[in-house]
Amino acid sequence: MVAAQPQVWLWPRLHGQCCRKVPSVAWTKNFTPHGLSRGVSWEPFSTNLPGLKIGSSPGPSSGGNCVLKKEGIRVVSPNTASPNLTLDFLDAWDDEYDGVIIDPESLPSSANAFASALRASLTNWKLKGKKGIWLKMLKEQADLVPTAIQEGFDYHHAEPGFIMLTYWIPVEPCTLPSSPSHQIGIAGFVINDKREILVVKEKCPCSCAGVWKLPTGYIDKSEEIFCGAIREVKEETGVDTAFLEMVAFRHAQLVAFEKSDLMFVCMLKPLSFEIKIDEKEIQDAKWIALDELVGQPFYVEDQMSKRIIEICMATYDSHYDGFIAHELTSKFDGNLSYLYYKDLK
Amino acid sequence: MVAAQPQVWLWPRLHGQCCRKVPSVAWTKNFTPHGLSRGVSWEPFSTNLPGLKIGSSPGPSSGGNCVLKKEGIRVVSPNTASPNLTLDFLDAWDDEYDGVIIDPESLPSSANAFASALRASLTNWKLKGKKGIWLKMLKEQADLVPTAIQEGFDYHHAEPGFIMLTYWIPVEPCTLPSSPSHQIGIAGFVINDKREILVVKEKCPCSCAGVWKLPTGYIDKSEEIFCGAIREVKEETGVDTAFLEMVAFRHAQLVAFEKSDLMFVCMLKPLSFEIKIDEKEIQDAKWIALDELVGQPFYVEDQMSKRIIEICMATYDSHYDGFIAHELTSKFDGNLSYLYYKDLK
Repeated sequence: MVAAQPQVWLWPRLHGQCCRKVPSVAWTKNFTPHGLSRGVSWEPFSTNLPGLKIGSSPGPSSGGNCVLKKEGIRVVSPNTASPNLTLDFLDAWDDEYDGVIIDPESLPSSANAFASALRASLTNWKLKGKKGIWLKMLKEQADLVPTAIQEGFDYHHAEPGFIMLTYWIPVEPCTLPSSPSHQIGIAGFVINDKREILVVKEKCPCSCAGVWKLPTGYIDKSEEIFCGAIREVKEETGVDTAFLEMVAFRHAQLVAFEKSDLMFVCMLKPLSFEIKIDEKEIQDAKWIALDELVGQPFYVEDQMSKRIIEICMATYDSHYDGFIAHELTSKFDGNLSYLYYKDLK
Repeated sequence: MVAAQPQVWLWPRLHGQCCRKVPSVAWTKNFTPHGLSRGVSWEPFSTNLPGLKIGSSPGPSSGGNCVLKKEGIRVVSPNTASPNLTLDFLDAWDDEYDGVIIDPESLPSSANAFASALRASLTNWKLKGKKGIWLKMLKEQADLVPTAIQEGFDYHHAEPGFIMLTYWIPVEPCTLPSSPSHQIGIAGFVINDKREILVVKEKCPCSCAGVWKLPTGYIDKSEEIFCGAIREVKEETGVDTAFLEMVAFRHAQLVAFEKSDLMFVCMLKPLSFEIKIDEKEIQDAKWIALDELVGQPFYVEDQMSKRIIEICMATYDSHYDGFIAHELTSKFDGNLSYLYYKDLK
C-alpha cells in the first residue's frame, strides 16, 4: 500500500528554480499510514488531471529545462484530533515550496460542503506552516468560485475551461510566481529574387487599413516561434516559406489587457510565389518593390517600422546576421528546446 | 447632451491590427438619442475603470504601437420594442470588431438581476449581429461568476483582482485574441576583469541546489527586459551592473501552468563588485573562474547551459555580438518601445 518512493508534484518556482527529474516526497506532518480515520485514504497514484499537466521549470535558469510526469500521493490530511473524530479536508498534494496543490477532481459539488472543507483545510495548512495554496477550478465548478473568494483566495490566471486561484498564508511578501504576462508574435519578412517583399493589406476598420505591411500574427500556445512565422505567412498569403533567422524583436508594453507583447522579426525564404489570401482577415497581398513599401506615409513617419525594414534588407544583402534557432537538449529530461543565437565562429 | 464626436474604445485585435489614435464611433443599430425609454440614458464620458486601462495594439505589427485613452459612450441599448416598454440591459461599449465590452462598474450586485439583464442583453446583441462579448469582473463581483458561466461565458484570462470572461456569438470559429501565454525571464552574465563570472547557489530543495549558476529571474509586468536583468542581479547578489547586449534567448514550452517562457541571456557590465546576497532565496554567491563553472557535472552534462556560457565568453572576447536595446518611437502616439537588434553597419 505504501509506495517505496512516493513522489510529489514539483511546482515551478519564480527565481531560476531548477527542476528535478525525481522529486522527493514531502510528507505531511503527523501523517502515518496507520491510525487513519474512516474515509481517509492514502495511495500512490498517477493521474492526468485535465489541464493540470505541469512541466516543472527552472524558472528562467540557464539550464535544466524539463517536464515532470504527473505522479504523486493523494494525501488526505489525517485526523489530527482523535482517531474517532472525522474531519473533512480537501484532497491535496504538498509541493516542494511548503505549498499545497488542491486536487480539483475531488472538490465537493456543493458550495456549502466546499466552504466547510476549505475552511477546515486552511486551518490545518496554517497549523502546518504551509505557504502558497493553489486551487484550480474547472468551468463546471464555477459555483464554487464565490466561496473560494470569500475564504480569501484571489484569482491567479485563467484560460478557457478553468481558473486558477491562490491563497498566500504567511505574513511575509508573497513569492508565488506571477501569471503569464506576454503574448508572442512574429512579423515575417519574405523577399524574392527580384527584391520584392511579400506584404498584405489587412481588413481592419482602422486608419492603417490601406497600408501595405509585413504579415504578422501571434504564435499559438506551445508553438515554436519559427513555426508560427511560417504558419502565419502561409495563412495570410498562401506562400510557403522556410525559416532563416530572427533579426530583431520588439518589446511593447501595455498593448492588450494591460499585458505586453514581444514581436520577433523573422527572415523567411520563399518556397512558393503564388498568392492566395485569407479573405477573412486580409484584403489583399502582393510582392512589393522596396521603394514602394518604404515610400508609404506610414513608413516615412514610423521610426520602428522603417528600422525593421532596414534591418531585414541589410540581412538580405549580407551586411547583417541575426539569430538562428538551435535545438538543444537539457540534462534533466532529454527534452529539446530552442536556443536562438548566432552561429559561433 | 450628444457629443459632437462620440468615440468608442478600440479593442486590440489579434492579427497585426493597427491602432488608431482617435477611434471612430460605432453606433448601435436602431439607436437614436430620442425615443429612449425611462431608465435608458446616453452621454459621452471619460472614465478610468479600474484595471480596464487598455493600450490598443497593432497586434504584433511592424509598427504603430500606441496607447489610447479610455473614452467612450456608455451606450445603454435602447428600447427596441416599444417606447413604453422598459428592458434592463447591461451598460456596454461597442468595439470596432462588431464586439461588445460590458461595463464592469455597472453590473448589478444581485445575481438574479444580473442574470436577467445578461440574458436580455445577449438576446439583443445576437439580434444586432454582435460577435465577441467581453465581461470583466472584479474580485468583489465573484458572486456573479456562476451566472455568467451558466449563460454561456467562458474564462479568458485573470490576474489578482479580476477575471475576464468572453462569449462568442457567431457559429464561425472564434477569432478573439488568446490570453497571454508566456512569462519572460532573464539570465545575467556578469564578468569582471579577472575573467571571473558572477554566480549564485539558490536555496532550492531540488537537486541543483548545489550548482553554481547565473543569476536568473522573471521580469515584472511592464518591465523592460534589460531593467529586469539589472534588477535581478542586484537583488540576488548586490552587484550593480549596466546592460550591454542580449546574446541569445531560450524558448521553452510547457514550463509552468501549461505555459511557456522565454529567457533572454543578457551581458551586463559590473559597476560594483561586493557581493551581498538575498538570503531569502540565495544560499551563496561568488565570482567564479570559468573552468570551475563549466567543470561542474551539471554543465558538463547540460548542452543548453554549456552553450550559453560559450556564447557569453565569445561575446566577452569580442568574437560575437548580440542585440542591443534601441528605443524607437511609433508614429501613432509618440510612445517609445524597444527594438532589440545589432547595430547596423
